[in-house]
Amino acid sequence: MKISAVKKLFVGSPLATAQARHERLSRTSALAVFSSDALSSVAYATEEILLVLVLAGSAALTFSIPIGIAIALLIAVVVSSYRQTILAYPHGGGAYIVTKDNLGTLPALVAAGALLIDYVLTVAVSVAAGVAAITSAFPALYDYRIPLGVLFIAGIATMNLRGLRESSNLFAVPTYLFVVSFAGMLAYGFVGWAAGWETPPPPTADIAGTQDLTLFLVLRAFSSGCAALTGVEAVSDGVPAFRPPEARNARIVLTWLGVILITLFVGITFLARHLHVMPRAEETVVSQLARLIFGNGLLYYEIQVVTMFILVFAANTAFADFPRLAYFLARDGFIPRQFATRGDRLVFSNGILILGGVAALLIALFGGATHALIPLYAVGVFLSFTLSQASMVRRWLTRREAGWRWRWILNAVGAATTGLVMLVIAVTKFSHGAWMVVLLIPLLVGLFMMIHRHYADVAGQLSLDAYGGPPPIDHTVLVLVGDLHRGVAAALRYAQTLSASVKAVYVEMDPERTQKLEEKWGKWGLGIPLVVLTSPYRSLLTPFLDYINHLLALSERQVVTIVIPEFVPARWWQHLLHNQTALLIKGALLFRKGVVVVDVPFHLR
Amino acid sequence: MKISAVKKLFVGSPLATAQARHERLSRTSALAVFSSDALSSVAYATEEILLVLVLAGSAALTFSIPIGIAIALLIAVVVSSYRQTILAYPHGGGAYIVTKDNLGTLPALVAAGALLIDYVLTVAVSVAAGVAAITSAFPALYDYRIPLGVLFIAGIATMNLRGLRESSNLFAVPTYLFVVSFAGMLAYGFVGWAAGWETPPPPTADIAGTQDLTLFLVLRAFSSGCAALTGVEAVSDGVPAFRPPEARNARIVLTWLGVILITLFVGITFLARHLHVMPRAEETVVSQLARLIFGNGLLYYEIQVVTMFILVFAANTAFADFPRLAYFLARDGFIPRQFATRGDRLVFSNGILILGGVAALLIALFGGATHALIPLYAVGVFLSFTLSQASMVRRWLTRREAGWRWRWILNAVGAATTGLVMLVIAVTKFSHGAWMVVLLIPLLVGLFMMIHRHYADVAGQLSLDAYGGPPPIDHTVLVLVGDLHRGVAAALRYAQTLSASVKAVYVEMDPERTQKLEEKWGKWGLGIPLVVLTSPYRSLLTPFLDYINHLLALSERQVVTIVIPEFVPARWWQHLLHNQTALLIKGALLFRKGVVVVDVPFHLR
Repeated sequence: MKISAVKKLFVGSPLATAQARHERLSRTSALAVFSSDALSSVAYATEEILLVLVLAGSAALTFSIPIGIAIALLIAVVVSSYRQTILAYPHGGGAYIVTKDNLGTLPALVAAGALLIDYVLTVAVSVAAGVAAITSAFPALYDYRIPLGVLFIAGIATMNLRGLRESSNLFAVPTYLFVVSFAGMLAYGFVGWAAGWETPPPPTADIAGTQDLTLFLVLRAFSSGCAALTGVEAVSDGVPAFRPPEARNARIVLTWLGVILITLFVGITFLARHLHVMPRAEETVVSQLARLIFGNGLLYYEIQVVTMFILVFAANTAFADFPRLAYFLARDGFIPRQFATRGDRLVFSNGILILGGVAALLIALFGGATHALIPLYAVGVFLSFTLSQASMVRRWLTRREAGWRWRWILNAVGAATTGLVMLVIAVTKFSHGAWMVVLLIPLLVGLFMMIHRHYADVAGQLSLDAYGGPPPIDHTVLVLVGDLHRGVAAALRYAQTLSASVKAVYVEMDPERTQKLEEKWGKWGLGIPLVVLTSPYRSLLTPFLDYINHLLALSERQVVTIVIPEFVPARWWQHLLHNQTALLIKGALLFRKGVVVVDVPFHLR
Repeated sequence: MKISAVKKLFVGSPLATAQARHERLSRTSALAVFSSDALSSVAYATEEILLVLVLAGSAALTFSIPIGIAIALLIAVVVSSYRQTILAYPHGGGAYIVTKDNLGTLPALVAAGALLIDYVLTVAVSVAAGVAAITSAFPALYDYRIPLGVLFIAGIATMNLRGLRESSNLFAVPTYLFVVSFAGMLAYGFVGWAAGWETPPPPTADIAGTQDLTLFLVLRAFSSGCAALTGVEAVSDGVPAFRPPEARNARIVLTWLGVILITLFVGITFLARHLHVMPRAEETVVSQLARLIFGNGLLYYEIQVVTMFILVFAANTAFADFPRLAYFLARDGFIPRQFATRGDRLVFSNGILILGGVAALLIALFGGATHALIPLYAVGVFLSFTLSQASMVRRWLTRREAGWRWRWILNAVGAATTGLVMLVIAVTKFSHGAWMVVLLIPLLVGLFMMIHRHYADVAGQLSLDAYGGPPPIDHTVLVLVGDLHRGVAAALRYAQTLSASVKAVYVEMDPERTQKLEEKWGKWGLGIPLVVLTSPYRSLLTPFLDYINHLLALSERQVVTIVIPEFVPARWWQHLLHNQTALLIKGALLFRKGVVVVDVPFHLR
């Protein structure tokens, strides 16, 4: 099967540019499309809080309640703040664009670097958590979590390379199923708990703490829980996809999202505490909760499958966001231009491939464990939150548009809060992995600027401003010959059409052969002069290169075209039976200034 | 360090063709140069006989005596036979040349295939045996026998790539030291044994046989011992290297060689039997013999080191023989031509590299064990003996030169004897590995003929006989442009020097950009017409290839030259920041009939 056939099988036939479609989303569809990233984090956020607190013993788990409330308030602040961004950026207000607009290029690149890292981690964390939902239900699969994770990523990447044309319908079912299932589970759990139907068995034994319960530890638990906020910004990035009035609909959807997110997150955190759920490596907190509430029946499995789906869809949103941001960065010349080209299926294939590759690598390096990836995650998210909100503050204060007096305050509260949280996360998580992100962001920014400088430099060198036209050329055409036969004769004929001043060059290894060649040349040399170079060391290359250098030294305007007759055998293995002289010469003269190498194929039957 | 510098370090500076030197050898020098291969086999031939016989129990070892005598007679027959070859081929009578001369191409190719295999095995077997001599003396090295063997081969190959200019002096010391040391050891051993100085301790226990002592087993032991004959033909191959009268001197040296070989081989076989030496994996028979005769003193170590050296020199002769035979075969068009070119140091580098590579592979595959390689060895040798002697019979009978009446009888006896031995070896060793050689020889012959047919076919297609001159050409030059800037302008200027009918081709992805390009084109397009191709699927390649096909269809005489402007960034990593369009186009049009691709480099600062 040819490569193109394999590609067609997995990726599909090419789509015409005219087939690009701009779907407009109703509020219910939009909620489904933009909420999966944010909502999916309730599958692991509570667990991450408990995992830190339990280090101080099972008694410390009580602190999950105030931490949960603090995070709920944080969600409310961030949602209010982003409602203002939507008003100002009805064409989409991603952190890179908003920051570039208001704070300038350097902060925008910082936001972009943070976001690129964030998207990669969204894929890695969501897929790891999705796999954990499955391995909680089917423990036999636990040992295969890394290959399962890589397989999930490969699957999502493939779908995205095809282009997800039916996206909104595809999203609606699992998202609403997730919301309804989780709301139902929580309601049933709370009713049962309030009615005292059945007391779940208390944990077999209290766990002794290995660390003191310090403020630092509580803040670390809070930092871990902040993973619940990831993805909240998705609505404001996607305003143009809404049906008109876009901004109003987007604001309503964002509010809905905030309410659902707070409800589910706080509900899970409270119930997990009251039912005495302990975090464990082999089974997720949500899985334990679902077992306690529903028993081991069908409803339990439904919760796990729905959790897995919402997490996979969350990963999927990063596959839309990363290539789009990469496109903006490539368009502005901060990353290689190849990220700005749409592939056969109208998607930014290079961005999808890079994202999938790096995320799969992370899954493998971090052992497929959500918990190990979380410390890297939230720093970048909150850095981009902060820059984005701070940009809005600057905007309101500069432009003084309608409502700026209290809107700037909302954004300022948002910026200050998220900035503070970012610092808390960076400090409390630093030694657990946040240092990598703190290090990587400036490195990325440096790389962006280096690439930008290169492109600017090239553009300057290519610019037609003040251009006097291309310099005139003195053109010499050399045909390198090793013999005279039909293949060489055809190359000589070709060379004659290129220039009136063609010379054939022969490197002599054996004077006897030279004489034979000169005899044939009289009859079949097409009147082209034959230059014979001696080679005391039997090297073809050295005398020939010396001769070219000699020609180039004649004038600044000199361009030498070297024509090499090359056999093309009918079968690939026959290449092995012929000297690869053409390859050798091309290698030696590759990128040589003033030299153009042309090989003229002579096709053998 | 650059590759050229590394090459210079190991291989040395190039040598001028005029430096080729033709050394003429005295008889004593010639004996040293040509005997190492033959003499070295006494280091393992006796052991190989014992290893087979011991399968029938230690009592069966008695049969080593008659087998040794039979092999001594065989040596006498082969030497007498080759003495006739020397007379007839004073310019060197290798089996390939002699057979080709008298029996024709196909038998000659069979001889050539057998010889090539033989040379590879000479290297592998000799090096394995040389390593065994060392590991017998220093058992701690036994576990490193494979890397040691590969290292030896690499060393010998490197020396040969440098060109062994001081060869005869280099050979004389170890060869004569070997002869003198072994003769001394045997004399001392026999005197001691005759005088009954000291009875060596009998073996600790008799070994029980696992097989019956059948005629087949005895013949197998004989076949293994026939390894002693390998290398006897070297003198007759090298006649032109002797001082005049060449043939006479060569015949005398061959006789000396036969006498020494028989003496050493029979001596070792007798003494090993009388001193009750048992074959063992970790220590060679020669090593055991030397310990029994000399004790563990300096003389013992001298024997081992001298054995190692003669074996390495034996391997070294194959590094002269293989490339020379490959040269003949390449010259006659039976293997790739590259084997006929001399490298910088006037040696046939390709032959040396292939021989070293394959021999090292064999050492690794067969665990560095001489014993495992022996069954593959002698079939090829005796096949080439037989063909060579049979050729001589034919020659004497056809030409009836002086002395033909009894010379043909000598050669006929030789041919019949070696032919019979070859059959015995093939049958008794078949299942132990000889089948590989029996299979490989016809495969090689088939390959030789396939390659020959290809070269003949190509020569026919290239021949200037009845040639009407190269067909006339209608030449179209296309410049593929993606934009118009200084790089493109330079390429347009270059294209204008190639042809009066230049067109620029632009593949449209976005109509807006086309309009901008057309505006610039008016000012900077050098008057070259711009062809705009639409691309509904955003593919650069498809519309462009369609356009080229359309041009080619216009006439049989049409040749299309495609000029591609290509950036050459100042640093290698900057290549990653530019689309590799030129590479893509070259790949798509590689070896396309009627199409020539030229990329014109534009050098960035």
